Amino acid sequence: MTTATTTPIVARTRAELAAGLSRPGRVAFVPTMGALHEGHASLMRSARDQVGPDGSVVVSIFVNPLQFAPGEDLDRYPRTFDDDLDVCGREGVDVVFAPTVSEVYPGGVSAGITTESVTVDPGPLGDVLEGASRPGHFRGVLTVVAKLFGLVRPDVAVFGEKDYQQLALIRLMVSDLCLGIEIVGAPTDREPDGLARSSRNRYLDPVQREQAVALNRALRRAADAADQGYAAALAAGQAELQRSAGIDLDYLEIRATDLAELPVDATPGTSARALIAARVGTTRLIDNLALTIGEPATLTSSTEGSN
Amino acid sequence: MTTATTTPIVARTRAELAAGLSRPGRVAFVPTMGALHEGHASLMRSARDQVGPDGSVVVSIFVNPLQFAPGEDLDRYPRTFDDDLDVCGREGVDVVFAPTVSEVYPGGVSAGITTESVTVDPGPLGDVLEGASRPGHFRGVLTVVAKLFGLVRPDVAVFGEKDYQQLALIRLMVSDLCLGIEIVGAPTDREPDGLARSSRNRYLDPVQREQAVALNRALRRAADAADQGYAAALAAGQAELQRSAGIDLDYLEIRATDLAELPVDATPGTSARALIAARVGTTRLIDNLALTIGEPATLTSSTEGSN
Repeated sequence: MTTATTTPIVARTRAELAAGLSRPGRVAFVPTMGALHEGHASLMRSARDQVGPDGSVVVSIFVNPLQFAPGEDLDRYPRTFDDDLDVCGREGVDVVFAPTVSEVYPGGVSAGITTESVTVDPGPLGDVLEGASRPGHFRGVLTVVAKLFGLVRPDVAVFGEKDYQQLALIRLMVSDLCLGIEIVGAPTDREPDGLARSSRNRYLDPVQREQAVALNRALRRAADAADQGYAAALAAGQAELQRSAGIDLDYLEIRATDLAELPVDATPGTSARALIAARVGTTRLIDNLALTIGEPATLTSSTEGSN
Repeated sequence: MTTATTTPIVARTRAELAAGLSRPGRVAFVPTMGALHEGHASLMRSARDQVGPDGSVVVSIFVNPLQFAPGEDLDRYPRTFDDDLDVCGREGVDVVFAPTVSEVYPGGVSAGITTESVTVDPGPLGDVLEGASRPGHFRGVLTVVAKLFGLVRPDVAVFGEKDYQQLALIRLMVSDLCLGIEIVGAPTDREPDGLARSSRNRYLDPVQREQAVALNRALRRAADAADQGYAAALAAGQAELQRSAGIDLDYLEIRATDLAELPVDATPGTSARALIAARVGTTRLIDNLALTIGEPATLTSSTEGSN
């Protein structure tokens, strides 16, 4: 998969982006907030696979104030533009769109609030899981993605499964607003010990870095126990977290793949997703894992910790 | 402006629309709810002017449940498809997109409520004037227009100034969500006595039809008096309505052209818009007119009726 390093066109304005997109051929788009890591690189490779050598891969680097609530980490979110550009070059990206805040929000924005008028409302799925912990987050995500889609006009866009609810909501937005863009979900890239790669992992000190792997471990325990049913899976994940130090749990849930709530007696064979969010120190991390619900061994066992 | 009558392609599904749009050239789009009248015909001529003989003019005919509140006139809104097709044919329209409700909302919809997830939120401008009287109306309008824009993918779209707030919000949506579509506002088409042409005029009996012209008369009185300042203009419009029978006023307001509120001491020379909504019998009608605020004659005169 190694490509010779190229020098992407860097577009800072809408006009520069339009000029950079003048090549014919299909366009694949990877929206990011920068602080790029190997997970992002794998999204770029997925994007290239979608359009081939004659197409264009566009990466945006934009820390979107609208998706941060006041008091979140907007100000300290890592900005590593020169390193990001190296990653894009190594992956053969054609255009890097790195606009200023006012280029994206000419009407004005601050953390969680835009003084522009029209936004994209995520509806009920925007209020659960991450949306319950981060009010306004998905309105900010969908609004900026709609803007970026409008500016880049891609044929296909690639998002990581790491942000599973975001991916689900973007699929809904594309479907409900008829945006006509193919959405590709790319598997979560992980450290060797299982920790999902995230720009926010940079916030962790060495002790926290060790503790943080408990999120993935809890998901794997839940997936392993899922053949004994929904309640057993949830209990196994919760038990793993209770054994783990330094984890301030926000939620651990098992939901349908479309994030609908699952009944405790979910039909055996149901495909599902375990999702977790927790703080390690002051750093909020998320992860998720596919699992398949099996048959509960007996109706009276494995109910500990189900809610 | 007369064009030889053509037979437009009638597309009932998204696939038929896509097939009908296969011609090269620019696309101009006129979204309607059908019940077409001379006002719509003039929008179609504006659309043709935008793209010329080599472009395509697309008209949609779709009574959008999402922009009606429960209890409004969704069920009795006039459906006159055969006549509508004749109007489109006379105006040389290339494609008529007349989808079913489930083709536009495959996830389901009823008056004012969609069971789909993602909608377009109009923001504060959606809550005043028409939005104050019709909660959810502009969310419904912007959501369906976003969907139709996604399906038709026009270069330019034409909307009547008759629905002035709708036109303003669509301009905001295109700007805020970076839709990259040129929006053309077309002047309001009127009956000889000044009544704005509207599909809902069909609801009026002959007496109400005579009474209804008071809306436009009040706007003209306001515009005539505007050279004496904001308060004088408003008072003149209100006085005209008090002299008129059968008018159940919802609002008469004078606002900036972007619909921001105007101060009573608005700077002379300010371009503004007078907007009115009222019921005549059970029929709710709206109208609006441009005016220019002049210098108040004295500070103590013309304050009657200002608020």
